[in-house]
Amino acid sequence: MDLVVGIDIGGTKTKIGLVDKQGKTYGNTFFRTKEFPNLEAYLSQTKETVDELVASLDFESTIIGCGIGAPNASSKRGTIENAANLLWKGQVPILEKFKEIMPMPMRIMNDASAAALGEMLFGSGRNMTDFIAITLGTGFGAGIVANGQLIDGFDGFAGELGHVDMTIGDGRLTGLGVRGGLEAYVSATGLKRTIMYMLSKYMDDSRFRTIAFRDLHGEEITQAAEEGDVIAIRAFDYTAKMMAQALANFTAFTQPEAFVLMGGLTNSGKWILDPLNKYFNEFLLDVYKGKVKIIGSGMPGKTAAICGAAALIWEKHK
Amino acid sequence: MDLVVGIDIGGTKTKIGLVDKQGKTYGNTFFRTKEFPNLEAYLSQTKETVDELVASLDFESTIIGCGIGAPNASSKRGTIENAANLLWKGQVPILEKFKEIMPMPMRIMNDASAAALGEMLFGSGRNMTDFIAITLGTGFGAGIVANGQLIDGFDGFAGELGHVDMTIGDGRLTGLGVRGGLEAYVSATGLKRTIMYMLSKYMDDSRFRTIAFRDLHGEEITQAAEEGDVIAIRAFDYTAKMMAQALANFTAFTQPEAFVLMGGLTNSGKWILDPLNKYFNEFLLDVYKGKVKIIGSGMPGKTAAICGAAALIWEKHK
Repeated sequence: MDLVVGIDIGGTKTKIGLVDKQGKTYGNTFFRTKEFPNLEAYLSQTKETVDELVASLDFESTIIGCGIGAPNASSKRGTIENAANLLWKGQVPILEKFKEIMPMPMRIMNDASAAALGEMLFGSGRNMTDFIAITLGTGFGAGIVANGQLIDGFDGFAGELGHVDMTIGDGRLTGLGVRGGLEAYVSATGLKRTIMYMLSKYMDDSRFRTIAFRDLHGEEITQAAEEGDVIAIRAFDYTAKMMAQALANFTAFTQPEAFVLMGGLTNSGKWILDPLNKYFNEFLLDVYKGKVKIIGSGMPGKTAAICGAAALIWEKHK
Repeated sequence: MDLVVGIDIGGTKTKIGLVDKQGKTYGNTFFRTKEFPNLEAYLSQTKETVDELVASLDFESTIIGCGIGAPNASSKRGTIENAANLLWKGQVPILEKFKEIMPMPMRIMNDASAAALGEMLFGSGRNMTDFIAITLGTGFGAGIVANGQLIDGFDGFAGELGHVDMTIGDGRLTGLGVRGGLEAYVSATGLKRTIMYMLSKYMDDSRFRTIAFRDLHGEEITQAAEEGDVIAIRAFDYTAKMMAQALANFTAFTQPEAFVLMGGLTNSGKWILDPLNKYFNEFLLDVYKGKVKIIGSGMPGKTAAICGAAALIWEKHK
């Protein structure tokens, strides 16, 4: 069977899997990215993991290529450049390095763009020519599909929507130092920052009065909302409102048929999605009202990023 | 010679011309749109004007089609929908109506998208796969070219960037009632509103202390700046800053190689362009710095809109 290696390089985890033409994953695994601050050691660890995965298959297979999704990756230059959440700084020629130790057809792309390609080939985007995939993890990523094609940008850096300024003026700084940048509000990290903001703004009792910023986790904020914690509920509402404004603005750009949401923050379910849908319909221009859906990923949660990376190669075999 | 009829339907003027394959215009003219609030009368006037233009040619010609640019036009449905600056309200099936009286190959598109297509075929966009054309007239329009294609949107309404909310909160209302909408700031009308704002904010003497809003004209604001009127200079600076923030945000979307500016506000030259370039480079994400140009239209001013409309047909003959 023909298989593609899918590698998702994340700030926390590097996920690796083998993906067939239908988007089914065989043997997926991960290791912690931050344990390999040295690039050469990281590359060796990756190759080793891929070799182990292939060896563990109990059927005949041919590896026809490798797709890589990574933050701040330029598809045109094969580089990762100034990624805020990775330890390798500057312009890293990662594709060239990977090709040296794993010679095979290989492509790299911004992780959110890879996710969009995955949705287009295997997931919620299969029947759409215009949609925007949004990853809500540590940061805010976007992959834009328009006219049935992924939009690359002149230099391979389209879709950096987490750094769109939402506030004009006195906004929060993102990891890249962008004031008012969207991902400072709308992301797992943004939600935690908003819990702090709500604790500053209101005096209501809350379980978060006794928890330090670094000890905060998304699941706990969802659980608090379930239990009626008003600080948590207000934080979700605030996050959803900012996100709704952003999605309404983005709609005016390429007029997608849908936004496909994925990533940690979507696990909060109705707490984020209910206010998001409410505000989105409120903010949307009349000409777009009722025409833009907000939907979830069409790929199994744990393998979505891997399938997206593998889609870079499978796209060329359709 | 094969020629295409180019029609640009504007809130003030309807411009009509005959355009050859190289984008050269033969016999262009205009009439005032608002003199024909009745759609049937408008259509007759347009047909009459086209017939006169064709009759006035002193060489043999074949009209191979007609392209129309109009505000709020849906390329997919052939309609003009709820255009704030036109007298015909609701959903106007304009393409169907035109085809009844002028049977020939015909296409309609949002005016700014048509302008982008014109730049792609005949103007500044000829060697670019990724750029955004921006029209700065009564309103703010945008036509987006990415991956070498014009982006339509799911429903033909991509590029409505004049209605992107720039302020989150207490912003100005646009003609469509969008609070904080970009075109309430960045357009010929936006500049006039900003003169009022500067008169409210500062007590400096200015020629505009004696001029009513309705009597204000763009050329006079430029002239006042030339003469050192601080209210005019501050108004340009404010407009440029807002525009720079918007263009920096738009860059994160499709990463264009250039923004191609056209329309009345660009006639103000350095007064708008100098601060625009300064703020743009300040606001742009590091990853984009030095890679995005702000340039002017590559088509002769008076015929750019007509050539853009004609490009809708010529595009299909390349």
